[in-house]
Amino acid sequence: MWTISTPYAPPLPKPALEEGTDFTPKFDADGLITCVTLEHASGEILMLAHMNAEALSLTLSTGIVHYWSRSRQSLWRKGDTSGQIQILIELRTDCDQDALIARVQVGGDGKACHTGRKSCFYRRIVLGDEGPKLVLSE
Amino acid sequence: MWTISTPYAPPLPKPALEEGTDFTPKFDADGLITCVTLEHASGEILMLAHMNAEALSLTLSTGIVHYWSRSRQSLWRKGDTSGQIQILIELRTDCDQDALIARVQVGGDGKACHTGRKSCFYRRIVLGDEGPKLVLSE
Repeated sequence: MWTISTPYAPPLPKPALEEGTDFTPKFDADGLITCVTLEHASGEILMLAHMNAEALSLTLSTGIVHYWSRSRQSLWRKGDTSGQIQILIELRTDCDQDALIARVQVGGDGKACHTGRKSCFYRRIVLGDEGPKLVLSE
Repeated sequence: MWTISTPYAPPLPKPALEEGTDFTPKFDADGLITCVTLEHASGEILMLAHMNAEALSLTLSTGIVHYWSRSRQSLWRKGDTSGQIQILIELRTDCDQDALIARVQVGGDGKACHTGRKSCFYRRIVLGDEGPKLVLSE
């Protein structure tokens, strides 16, 4: 019986890692895995954040996306203070199981960025003579 | 005059980091920044990889996406052997400038994953009684 405290098995060797059905997420040296979060309805990328094993398990078991806040060094159920809760629609992993895509439906005002924008990716990088600059492109 | 060997300035303090036009990417302890790569025409996420400062500068200056291969510990112009070159359409950064989104047009057969698939994210994670399992969902 799986519980949220069940540890994840260590990464399998290829080809099971790439072609199999066992989920053996590869956490980095800090115990984190990167998650790209998309608005389900539009497919728009909202943010990129990180999960530790507990956040990942809580995301799967509750259907509400949890992260690990690197700046605060604490478990972070996004939306607890802002209302911008993220209801999990689908979670995917990649070939070597070291990254995740979460498709979500966002609560509250539907936004994800702490700056008040919907997406954190509101600036394009444009290369000019003096080097790369940022251009607002929401 | 900016060249590909021009170093990036260290990250600015807020609010310039979040609201300004200066690009001051935040590389991690290994000197890397995460890049999410999308097929421009469809918006589909193809892969997630990493760039060091050189790969980022080469991506901007050549218009062809370069990464840093963590497994091979070397600069990696994707597509050099496979033909699946990634022509940069747009590069974005996020609020705290520690992540990138590259929108690309893929050469060759249009795929990105070394397993022969278009996208690396070909498996969904589904939670059953025995824990999370992977389901092929291309």
